[in-house]
Amino acid sequence: MDTMQALLTRRSVRKFTFQVVPDETIEVLLRAAMHAPSARNRQPWHFYVITERDVLRKIPDVHPFAAMTQEASLAVVVCGDETILPDAKRWGIDCAAATQNLLLSAHALGLGAVWCGVYPDPERQREIKNLLKLPDRIHPFSLVPIGFPAEPLPIVDRFLPERIHTNAW
Amino acid sequence: MDTMQALLTRRSVRKFTFQVVPDETIEVLLRAAMHAPSARNRQPWHFYVITERDVLRKIPDVHPFAAMTQEASLAVVVCGDETILPDAKRWGIDCAAATQNLLLSAHALGLGAVWCGVYPDPERQREIKNLLKLPDRIHPFSLVPIGFPAEPLPIVDRFLPERIHTNAW
Repeated sequence: MDTMQALLTRRSVRKFTFQVVPDETIEVLLRAAMHAPSARNRQPWHFYVITERDVLRKIPDVHPFAAMTQEASLAVVVCGDETILPDAKRWGIDCAAATQNLLLSAHALGLGAVWCGVYPDPERQREIKNLLKLPDRIHPFSLVPIGFPAEPLPIVDRFLPERIHTNAW
Repeated sequence: MDTMQALLTRRSVRKFTFQVVPDETIEVLLRAAMHAPSARNRQPWHFYVITERDVLRKIPDVHPFAAMTQEASLAVVVCGDETILPDAKRWGIDCAAATQNLLLSAHALGLGAVWCGVYPDPERQREIKNLLKLPDRIHPFSLVPIGFPAEPLPIVDRFLPERIHTNAW
């Protein structure tokens, strides 16, 4: 898919078919995520991939807006590593860029995905960390259910010229 | 440009020719940025576009890693609006996604760009806010110099399989 088309037509997908996303495709998605820019190229991220149905079923118990993981083929939890970058505000920015690459690559490959926020919500961070048994130094940043879309992706024009200020506010 | 190619070959560009980026192209870049996802689709962003040479020349005085704005055709300052979303950590995440879309669209159109961090550095935020005379409620998040690349973009493989954890850490 053309890049501009992908950027303008990507939408949050919350309904999935039960078709399974192949392992090779998951690797392509994570490769795209890892090519995001990061401050001083420190790449302070890890990717926890959930494909076990039992765990996918439990996610809605620990995240109030992630019911769609029950249908998703997988979910990726993008995590920050405080031993690479201690400041949560900083690894948060880098993990956001990686999450956006993940969403765009999913869309480009005909998959659907949605960004469920974890950081900076302390309760969601704690619960997901417990469920996945993440090491102390690892902090979940976002949860991205992924699958084949079972809903249309309406085109929406979000361009707001009043948000552009050229050489003066 | 194909989306996967754009995601995998985008690099930070810090040297630019003096060729001017047309206004229509700037609008395309900002359109891509505004199609980023945001929490509950609140779109808490503004885009301050600097094309005035005098201001581009002053940027390195207020940002220690932005010398390249002296050569860039323009710079976009992605800003968060606290009246739309009060928590800096939250508008920061949304502005990060918009910044990443800006970088990817620039690359796809044959331009070069680089993400210069502003938030969460309080001094850079204050200095850029003063220079651009931003309203109190508006907070600069990132500064993105953009132009036609005057340096090669080496392909680098950033894929790290050890950062992937499938169903177990």
